[in-house]
Amino acid sequence: MALDIKTGQTHIKSKAMVAWAAGEPLKMEEVDVQLPKAGEVLVRIVATGVCHTDLFTLSGDDPEGIFPSILGHEGGGIVEMIGEGVTSVEVGDHVIPLYTAECGECKFCKSGKTNLCQAVRETQGQGLMPDGTSRFSINGETIFHYMGCSTFSEFTVLPEISLAKVSKEAPLEEVCLLGCGVTTGMGAVLNTAKVEKGDTVAVFGLGGIGLSAIIGAKMAGASRIIGVDLNESKYELAKKLGATDCINPTNFDKPIQEVIVEMTDGGVDYSFECIGNVNVMRAALECCHKGWGESIIIGVAGAGQEISTRPFQLVTGRVWRGSAFGGVKGRTELPGIVDRYMQGEFALDDFITHTMGLADVNAAFDLMHEGKSIRTVLHMDK
Amino acid sequence: MALDIKTGQTHIKSKAMVAWAAGEPLKMEEVDVQLPKAGEVLVRIVATGVCHTDLFTLSGDDPEGIFPSILGHEGGGIVEMIGEGVTSVEVGDHVIPLYTAECGECKFCKSGKTNLCQAVRETQGQGLMPDGTSRFSINGETIFHYMGCSTFSEFTVLPEISLAKVSKEAPLEEVCLLGCGVTTGMGAVLNTAKVEKGDTVAVFGLGGIGLSAIIGAKMAGASRIIGVDLNESKYELAKKLGATDCINPTNFDKPIQEVIVEMTDGGVDYSFECIGNVNVMRAALECCHKGWGESIIIGVAGAGQEISTRPFQLVTGRVWRGSAFGGVKGRTELPGIVDRYMQGEFALDDFITHTMGLADVNAAFDLMHEGKSIRTVLHMDK
Repeated sequence: MALDIKTGQTHIKSKAMVAWAAGEPLKMEEVDVQLPKAGEVLVRIVATGVCHTDLFTLSGDDPEGIFPSILGHEGGGIVEMIGEGVTSVEVGDHVIPLYTAECGECKFCKSGKTNLCQAVRETQGQGLMPDGTSRFSINGETIFHYMGCSTFSEFTVLPEISLAKVSKEAPLEEVCLLGCGVTTGMGAVLNTAKVEKGDTVAVFGLGGIGLSAIIGAKMAGASRIIGVDLNESKYELAKKLGATDCINPTNFDKPIQEVIVEMTDGGVDYSFECIGNVNVMRAALECCHKGWGESIIIGVAGAGQEISTRPFQLVTGRVWRGSAFGGVKGRTELPGIVDRYMQGEFALDDFITHTMGLADVNAAFDLMHEGKSIRTVLHMDK
Repeated sequence: MALDIKTGQTHIKSKAMVAWAAGEPLKMEEVDVQLPKAGEVLVRIVATGVCHTDLFTLSGDDPEGIFPSILGHEGGGIVEMIGEGVTSVEVGDHVIPLYTAECGECKFCKSGKTNLCQAVRETQGQGLMPDGTSRFSINGETIFHYMGCSTFSEFTVLPEISLAKVSKEAPLEEVCLLGCGVTTGMGAVLNTAKVEKGDTVAVFGLGGIGLSAIIGAKMAGASRIIGVDLNESKYELAKKLGATDCINPTNFDKPIQEVIVEMTDGGVDYSFECIGNVNVMRAALECCHKGWGESIIIGVAGAGQEISTRPFQLVTGRVWRGSAFGGVKGRTELPGIVDRYMQGEFALDDFITHTMGLADVNAAFDLMHEGKSIRTVLHMDK
């Protein structure tokens, strides 16, 4: 399927699931997608994961949530058209949309210390392209972008700097998961924490991010990987992926941090909070080993919520940090992660519990609500 | 003055300022000091600094405070007698007592990741020597040790692993300050944060620790060193030592973290909390640069107090950590710091605002209460 763009044409039609308002089911619509401007790229989405963050924004609890908009940010697609001046991708390239761009030129990119490029941060947070406008509309009404990606759409437009060009051999319906969840969990372990062979690790929350953190810990050669979750049905997969122990906080009559400190002769070297619960974040810090243990917050807490602990926890050597998109620089590092996947270093099919069509996204949200899925992948051609 | 110990003698007499109870002035007493057992060392204290932590414990707010005891932990002295099996120091050596021992053999020492040796931690917290008894008594009544040091005494006994052997050329009445405050501030910058040339730094609290942090930042080549204190009389010395800016939070109508973020185009690379105030700890974290800024807690907060922030602060790349005794390993690293002092790399005399005799320690506490001193050093022969 190749796009047939006529001279003078400014828009194409695209089917998309539109979020009209917080708390309401998404609705299939025919959306007008404006062709890419300078520095922009039109991408045909082939497949997209459905992530808890999409659900979180739809719920209305996300203070940055904007409606009406096209959600979705964990996609894989093919370049259909490039705007003026675009040089890093061409038509036919396979790409993963990035909600964390990489311009290579801002203070953040140049620092060498972070993946948090700020080049398009402001407009992206407003649901707009870098020029301050949206490429989506229905009958002239603006539909906003989401996380700079909007992958719940057959066609979407992104800045060139928000696209990772990946191997054409990689199955987009699997590596789309590297656009968010899997990279976030794995990267937090390998890039942010830099877990080493023999280290001990605790992972709080065994959803997609937590399981990815377990994969990362296994890849790093961690000697002990403790999974923590209230839902014991998740233990089997966690153990398959590398967890050496799985524990349920409700089975103990003391705080889970004390249980882990006892299990590990003083605490773990690294812990990862993959839920977004501020109380769990505290437990994750406090289960770390005195002197050197580091806790990495990955989960996103609700608006206004705060973490707390006694400062003594830090003065005695624990470190509290966070990780966004696994500390991975999308354009320079994500293609290599896709290559490692292709070389069989880790599996993605364990994560994909359901596949559906784009129209089924509300059903995917329901499965998530019920805790019945890890990841649902929507195939555009289903 | 050399000790004349007779055969069969088990104790010597020592003058000491005893803390009989929380909140009461110290009292000069003649104390029985038991001669060192195996692995222990008898030290004649030549001079000792008076630190806020001594005052804090005396106040009764320190949950680990034990009475009656001999306070003081920032001393310099000379070895008078060694117990059986002691090999690392001999009579006549100049030493700095260490409240953080370094056994070289525990899990912590061997980790290479921390200076928080745990070899004597438990008994030290109970005011006792490693064998579970005290070396101090008056008419048979036990007087407890304090922080394993008890430097407000003419003679004290310490485990061998709690002594840093330093150059005999170094003036003990100055380098005693390296036994706590100066090393704590300087080490937090150089060892814990590892500040590099060109980095920007904010230091909250311009007492002895904060000024030492400024010295460390200056030694590291920081490009900007912002001192923060409510007491503007401290600015002159802070600037002399290396502060490029000194600011008073009460002079601004917005939170000080916002002021610093604006002053530094996004925040500082490193901040140091040198007060022990949990609200200031939050400000110190939040004035750090997104993506990489690190905040180091040095100050000791009151019992039960907690720090808090929004987890978003960490997820967007800030790091929260702490530092104890500047991350310095006392026996292996402190002698080198003394040597750097002797080579003129930094000054200590700016810190010593008052010198007195041991009997004047209550007057030294009064000066501290009134904010009139940085450090008072007590000379035993005064």
